[in-house]
Amino acid sequence: MYVVKSPLSDVNLQTVSEALQGALVDLVDLALVAKQIHWNVVGPRFRSVHLQLDEVVETARAHSDTVAERASALGVSPDGRAATVAVGSGIGVTPEGWVDDSAAVQTLVDALGAVIARMRERIAATGEPDPVSQDIFIQVTADLEKQRWMFQAANG
Amino acid sequence: MYVVKSPLSDVNLQTVSEALQGALVDLVDLALVAKQIHWNVVGPRFRSVHLQLDEVVETARAHSDTVAERASALGVSPDGRAATVAVGSGIGVTPEGWVDDSAAVQTLVDALGAVIARMRERIAATGEPDPVSQDIFIQVTADLEKQRWMFQAANG
Amino acid sequence: MYVVKSPLSDVNLQTVSEALQGALVDLVDLALVAKQIHWNVVGPRFRSVHLQLDEVVETARAHSDTVAERASALGVSPDGRAATVAVGSGIGVTPEGWVDDSAAVQTLVDALGAVIARMRERIAATGEPDPVSQDIFIQVTADLEKQRWMFQAANG
Amino acid sequence: MYVVKSPLSDVNLQTVSEALQGALVDLVDLALVAKQIHWNVVGPRFRSVHLQLDEVVETARAHSDTVAERASALGVSPDGRAATVAVGSGIGVTPEGWVDDSAAVQTLVDALGAVIARMRERIAATGEPDPVSQDIFIQVTADLEKQRWMFQAANG
Amino acid sequence: MYVVKSPLSDVNLQTVSEALQGALVDLVDLALVAKQIHWNVVGPRFRSVHLQLDEVVETARAHSDTVAERASALGVSPDGRAATVAVGSGIGVTPEGWVDDSAAVQTLVDALGAVIARMRERIAATGEPDPVSQDIFIQVTADLEKQRWMFQAANG
Amino acid sequence: MYVVKSPLSDVNLQTVSEALQGALVDLVDLALVAKQIHWNVVGPRFRSVHLQLDEVVETARAHSDTVAERASALGVSPDGRAATVAVGSGIGVTPEGWVDDSAAVQTLVDALGAVIARMRERIAATGEPDPVSQDIFIQVTADLEKQRWMFQAANG
Amino acid sequence: MYVVKSPLSDVNLQTVSEALQGALVDLVDLALVAKQIHWNVVGPRFRSVHLQLDEVVETARAHSDTVAERASALGVSPDGRAATVAVGSGIGVTPEGWVDDSAAVQTLVDALGAVIARMRERIAATGEPDPVSQDIFIQVTADLEKQRWMFQAANG
Amino acid sequence: MYVVKSPLSDVNLQTVSEALQGALVDLVDLALVAKQIHWNVVGPRFRSVHLQLDEVVETARAHSDTVAERASALGVSPDGRAATVAVGSGIGVTPEGWVDDSAAVQTLVDALGAVIARMRERIAATGEPDPVSQDIFIQVTADLEKQRWMFQAANG
Amino acid sequence: MYVVKSPLSDVNLQTVSEALQGALVDLVDLALVAKQIHWNVVGPRFRSVHLQLDEVVETARAHSDTVAERASALGVSPDGRAATVAVGSGIGVTPEGWVDDSAAVQTLVDALGAVIARMRERIAATGEPDPVSQDIFIQVTADLEKQRWMFQAANG
Amino acid sequence: MYVVKSPLSDVNLQTVSEALQGALVDLVDLALVAKQIHWNVVGPRFRSVHLQLDEVVETARAHSDTVAERASALGVSPDGRAATVAVGSGIGVTPEGWVDDSAAVQTLVDALGAVIARMRERIAATGEPDPVSQDIFIQVTADLEKQRWMFQAANG
Amino acid sequence: MYVVKSPLSDVNLQTVSEALQGALVDLVDLALVAKQIHWNVVGPRFRSVHLQLDEVVETARAHSDTVAERASALGVSPDGRAATVAVGSGIGVTPEGWVDDSAAVQTLVDALGAVIARMRERIAATGEPDPVSQDIFIQVTADLEKQRWMFQAANG
Amino acid sequence: MYVVKSPLSDVNLQTVSEALQGALVDLVDLALVAKQIHWNVVGPRFRSVHLQLDEVVETARAHSDTVAERASALGVSPDGRAATVAVGSGIGVTPEGWVDDSAAVQTLVDALGAVIARMRERIAATGEPDPVSQDIFIQVTADLEKQRWMFQAANG
Repeated sequence: MYVVKSPLSDVNLQTVSEALQGALVDLVDLALVAKQIHWNVVGPRFRSVHLQLDEVVETARAHSDTVAERASALGVSPDGRAATVAVGSGIGVTPEGWVDDSAAVQTLVDALGAVIARMRERIAATGEPDPVSQDIFIQVTADLEKQRWMFQAANG
Repeated sequence: MYVVKSPLSDVNLQTVSEALQGALVDLVDLALVAKQIHWNVVGPRFRSVHLQLDEVVETARAHSDTVAERASALGVSPDGRAATVAVGSGIGVTPEGWVDDSAAVQTLVDALGAVIARMRERIAATGEPDPVSQDIFIQVTADLEKQRWMFQAANG
Repeated sequence: MYVVKSPLSDVNLQTVSEALQGALVDLVDLALVAKQIHWNVVGPRFRSVHLQLDEVVETARAHSDTVAERASALGVSPDGRAATVAVGSGIGVTPEGWVDDSAAVQTLVDALGAVIARMRERIAATGEPDPVSQDIFIQVTADLEKQRWMFQAANG
Repeated sequence: MYVVKSPLSDVNLQTVSEALQGALVDLVDLALVAKQIHWNVVGPRFRSVHLQLDEVVETARAHSDTVAERASALGVSPDGRAATVAVGSGIGVTPEGWVDDSAAVQTLVDALGAVIARMRERIAATGEPDPVSQDIFIQVTADLEKQRWMFQAANG
Repeated sequence: MYVVKSPLSDVNLQTVSEALQGALVDLVDLALVAKQIHWNVVGPRFRSVHLQLDEVVETARAHSDTVAERASALGVSPDGRAATVAVGSGIGVTPEGWVDDSAAVQTLVDALGAVIARMRERIAATGEPDPVSQDIFIQVTADLEKQRWMFQAANG
Repeated sequence: MYVVKSPLSDVNLQTVSEALQGALVDLVDLALVAKQIHWNVVGPRFRSVHLQLDEVVETARAHSDTVAERASALGVSPDGRAATVAVGSGIGVTPEGWVDDSAAVQTLVDALGAVIARMRERIAATGEPDPVSQDIFIQVTADLEKQRWMFQAANG
Repeated sequence: MYVVKSPLSDVNLQTVSEALQGALVDLVDLALVAKQIHWNVVGPRFRSVHLQLDEVVETARAHSDTVAERASALGVSPDGRAATVAVGSGIGVTPEGWVDDSAAVQTLVDALGAVIARMRERIAATGEPDPVSQDIFIQVTADLEKQRWMFQAANG
Repeated sequence: MYVVKSPLSDVNLQTVSEALQGALVDLVDLALVAKQIHWNVVGPRFRSVHLQLDEVVETARAHSDTVAERASALGVSPDGRAATVAVGSGIGVTPEGWVDDSAAVQTLVDALGAVIARMRERIAATGEPDPVSQDIFIQVTADLEKQRWMFQAANG
Repeated sequence: MYVVKSPLSDVNLQTVSEALQGALVDLVDLALVAKQIHWNVVGPRFRSVHLQLDEVVETARAHSDTVAERASALGVSPDGRAATVAVGSGIGVTPEGWVDDSAAVQTLVDALGAVIARMRERIAATGEPDPVSQDIFIQVTADLEKQRWMFQAANG
Repeated sequence: MYVVKSPLSDVNLQTVSEALQGALVDLVDLALVAKQIHWNVVGPRFRSVHLQLDEVVETARAHSDTVAERASALGVSPDGRAATVAVGSGIGVTPEGWVDDSAAVQTLVDALGAVIARMRERIAATGEPDPVSQDIFIQVTADLEKQRWMFQAANG
Repeated sequence: MYVVKSPLSDVNLQTVSEALQGALVDLVDLALVAKQIHWNVVGPRFRSVHLQLDEVVETARAHSDTVAERASALGVSPDGRAATVAVGSGIGVTPEGWVDDSAAVQTLVDALGAVIARMRERIAATGEPDPVSQDIFIQVTADLEKQRWMFQAANG
Repeated sequence: MYVVKSPLSDVNLQTVSEALQGALVDLVDLALVAKQIHWNVVGPRFRSVHLQLDEVVETARAHSDTVAERASALGVSPDGRAATVAVGSGIGVTPEGWVDDSAAVQTLVDALGAVIARMRERIAATGEPDPVSQDIFIQVTADLEKQRWMFQAANG
């Protein structure tokens, strides 16, 4: 059976792998939510929101890959399956159906806010046990906070 | 409220929108499953399987976008949320944890087979009511059957 | 004199060539109308509409070239001259002068709707006599219905 | 209602906007005529003429966009609709149907000659009232005279 | 031994695999014939014919790969070996040695015509048993009929 | 010490170098103002204005480089330092802090208008002494007037 | 009015926003100073210095955008206007007029040194309150210290 | 009739043209064989072999074009028709049907070996009569021997 | 015989064609001189001068093509043959052999100065008879004066 | 003589420069070892290992350049000469001669493990004295640990 | 004074440098002649000849640079000045004025033939004294003979 | 065990493999030396030397890969490990520490000279036993002699 000796101690590995698994679930869900709104938004700001959301999708997909492969690199199996995401995501439920543009923007502000809050906790928790993973969370947070600003400003 | 007069009759629209929604769920899940194996595969064929799976991901993501936007174009709200995917996908459950390369290849053969069988039913069902949607299913099936061949040949 | 023996029977050729010539006129006019609004739109959504319209122009130009060269491939001379377009287009008259953004969006919804309706008739008419031409009309329709959705959603 | 205070005096604006509107109509028609011949040319020089004509189309389309947006920049609504082009173009009527390659080349020499003659009048008329518009006409003329040379040389 | 359970019934598979194998042989030979003329053409239209032929080669090569991999995807071994092509192609014998440009163009008109006639039969034969393969034949035919037009027009 | 014999007479050089130095200051400031609004705009049109402003920045930076190097080419030292720009720019003071999207658009209409007015004086002043510099001012003005149109139309 | 709830406490936000605003002013000025020398340098090393300076400009512009948008992401309005830069920059006054290449290089060594010293203070100040902003300052400093080395080596 | 005075003497031309014609046949067949295996390979190394074979195809196609055009440049008509290849190739018969990956690799080792042996004879034969043709054979051989190494190492 | 009716009167054509022919000779020679120095420069500034000279070559070649084709467009045969250039160029004789870098830079300053002086006369002469040709001379001069500045600054 | 005043204190500089010099030697050796195996690997996984190793080479080369230039930026001369690498590398001796694919993969797992262990010590040592250098080590470690995972998984 | 110790003996250097200088003159002239015809050709094949000639220009320019820098690499100053070319070229005098397309093609056949004959002598002369220079002549000859074939075939 | 039957006789293989192994060591060391100077050069020519050295690195790396893979293609294991390079290189010891630009240039002239002298011996030795390997040495030498010229000229 496949066992990897991690460069981290067991206790540190526990902390870091929980942070990575949590981040993976959040980021996969963020990409799914952003695509859902991308397809369902209506209203005068349709095109702006539709396009902005694909930037969120691209960012979330790229970071979810980095985070999952970071778990693998530490010898921890990542789990990004639909059922795992459906129950573990930090993002609230997105209502079904068409959504007008202001509500769409607000949905993203809220979703990004929820993920950012958890990501900042991961930055705090992993700095000591694994600065390499922490650096990934810092870069993820920088991108998410930039995205949140742009949606906030659009509803400002 | 946003209502679009569809170019299809109500009964045809019902048929086509069910086919599109089903295809959307299958394709979103296919991308998630392929990524899951992409991160968890181990064994001497690691690199070949790891890279091949990203081609499946790319194909599934592109087609899921086309299918979802086709639903929107017909005035039907698409649903690609994690919970919807978790319960509605035609792909069986992917086990958690590391997976050796032969099992990984077999998982894809099975997953692709399940999606293809449903997609061929959609081709049959939509030809009459909407040849435009049918043509999309035909192109999706062509790509999925090509991917399935390459995984089958690798375990042949 | 230049005479090409068509792969189609005379009666089939008659049906298909009328469909192609009609599609050519519609698509050339669609490109001209979209450019006209591209230059004349005003209002807070100026940039979104202005840019979206260039996507319509690009799509219409590419498809008009495909359709015209399909006619030539069947041995039928295509006619895309301004006067032919001015009298034969299925799109209603576009008023002169500046147009506010909501009206601009509506103009496109209407223009696309008119062309789509005729294009779906062409799909129905050509499937039997020439599936190759039918396939072109199917792809044209897929693109036009996607464009119409985006304008509809923007006025939704 | 949308009114823009132009940087030009009323009388100068009148002169310049007539020149721009005339140039727009000529250039849109030039693109349509070049495409018409592109599809209908036959004869041993088919490929050379067919390809050369797409360069004319590309040039005419790019310049027509520049000219129309120049009118908008001066606060004058441009008109590039099919009916306007059909009645206002400086290019003579292009016959329908297949055209042999020598006649095709001659058609372009004549069409380009007609547009160039009017464009040179626009250069003369606009230098005083608006050197910015004049500079655009100068660049358009340079490109058209280069194209005309290449067709003349091909029939020389 | 490697056996793939095809998504098609045995009788349908028989029909489709014959169509695919026949198309493969025709397309490989078309590429070889086009290259042969590409190297051996002489006359004032040398450059036009020489370049046009490389477009045929590129088209034929791309489609032959698609057709062969479609056979593999259905579980049928494709055969594109030289000897198989030499005896099974639908294209008549190309004479050895230099060929003047008019004859070169006529050779391509004939070769394309022979392949198109067989390809249209394949479209008719495969629509029922496998619309996915049929769609490939439709696209191949569209490209080949466009190429034939351009050679016909050049000798028109 | 570095002295360059200019191709212009002293009096002409005086006229032209003042025009170039003035244009340099205006264009550097225009880039700074556009970036300032790019960062501070809020409101439903956030994305459209935010992106449009980066096109202004790009245009202003490219032209400021051209203008400064034109001064150097005539042997006159250009001055684009912050303090020089702060006191010499033709653009009015931009207020600090967040700015809603309509006001942002108006700020650009005004800023562009101020620079255009001075640029047109430079066109008039330099035609005689140095048509090479004049041609640069003409091209700068064409781009700025196009940008102004797009902001005007967005507030129209 | 537009108010953003920052993810940072008020006191931390105060520290971080001062650091960001200071960095913005320094970086905008660095780009202006580098352009000023880019245009005014003379001497045998003209080309090397001229080109190296455009790398500084590109670096400073990219980082100033990142820093300003980071302030916006934290809910703090950034200020990069010419007058603000003129009085707040950490870079000493750049003399007007031509500058020989050795002095040009020294000017950059000094300007970069001044900005680096302040940027290192920002790294120290922001690690605790906001590691995301700190990471940005670390990357800015890495680039600036690399640039300073290359100018130092050139005068070494 | 088309006769080209070759830069080579008759006897040298005879030697060189035989070498070129032989190389052409070998290289066309190598491309066909590599494609055949590309479509028919099965087994755990499927992907590696499948991709490596397309590099062989690309190399063989590029060199066959160079060799054929070299013959034309010397005034000798090249013959790359299917029947000529089928009887003249130096590569042994490739069996029909699926082939497991180890056998596929061995097939390529053998095919490349056969072509290389003949190509080295051509290098020896042409150095004196035509160093330009010899240089082409040298470069072909370098590429083929590199390809053979990679297949040998894969079965080593 | 090939005769083109020029858009210019005979007397104007005489003036303009002399200007174009003179410019062609100067620009072809400038490219040859710049290449000559590119190959023969030695000294510590070798790399800077060597690379800068290829920019001059590229500029001179592009402009010579534009100027020659402008003559053709006016119906006047351009002459850019070596003997014509050798006797007609406005650039003084370039000494044979190696040249140290300061002298190389000075050679370019002088060569560019000579061509610029004549080019400015052409601007003055052609504004009236043909503003299209004049605009070409203006752009040529802008580029040459920029190049001269960079060489002057390097020897400053 | 060239002396650079470092931004770090002497004791901090000592710590950081030792870390950088050690990292440089490790990374240069890693690139050489990876190339050695790239050329010498044999076995069924040849292609996968051969290609994966070039990714290691590319990563190691890019990071060695960053690390060496970081030392220069701090005023410390980097040493990446062959003899220095041969005696100072943290990677054990690589045996000469062909190496089968499993052993090749294990060699990389070991080599990457040795470099990673030392790199993590450098992260710990440099955080206090120079967070800029630490950030570089963090990014190097992230890449190396990802590479090690992929080799481990391939032997898992 | 700049003296380079050549890797060749004096007598070998004499042979090789004469060959390089002769080739340089021929290739510079070939580029000038090809451009001359490029601008002056008229007739139905105008476009084919016009475009083919730019390929000759590109080839001749690239090879002339290689040959001149090869001379510099051997310590011999290359001479590519207009007067040197005018008197030393192996290409006969090109008549002034317009040239019909058949004559244009023949001019190139003759010019290429003259250069090829001299280039083959250089291959023979330099193989012993400097195989590095010989290899350059071989590659030049391969390209020129390919060009000559294409012009010959066009007049065949 | 892995044994490859070489296309060369044993005695020829001995000669060629020694030449390839020697060239490999020289080229790997050349890349390391060039990078060492790239990082350590100081003085007014810093940028020119720094950039030129990266071209040497790129050339040496590309050729070392070609040479090593050529050895593998002949069945001989190449050895490019640090220790092998440290003792076997033909380049003299490079001193540690900063190096002023003139000395840096001289170091490269010497290093290139040493490698070129050995490479010319390899050209002489391998022409008979293996013209394919000889051709590689010829191309390596052409590139190295061009590089040496540029450094010589810079110190000339």
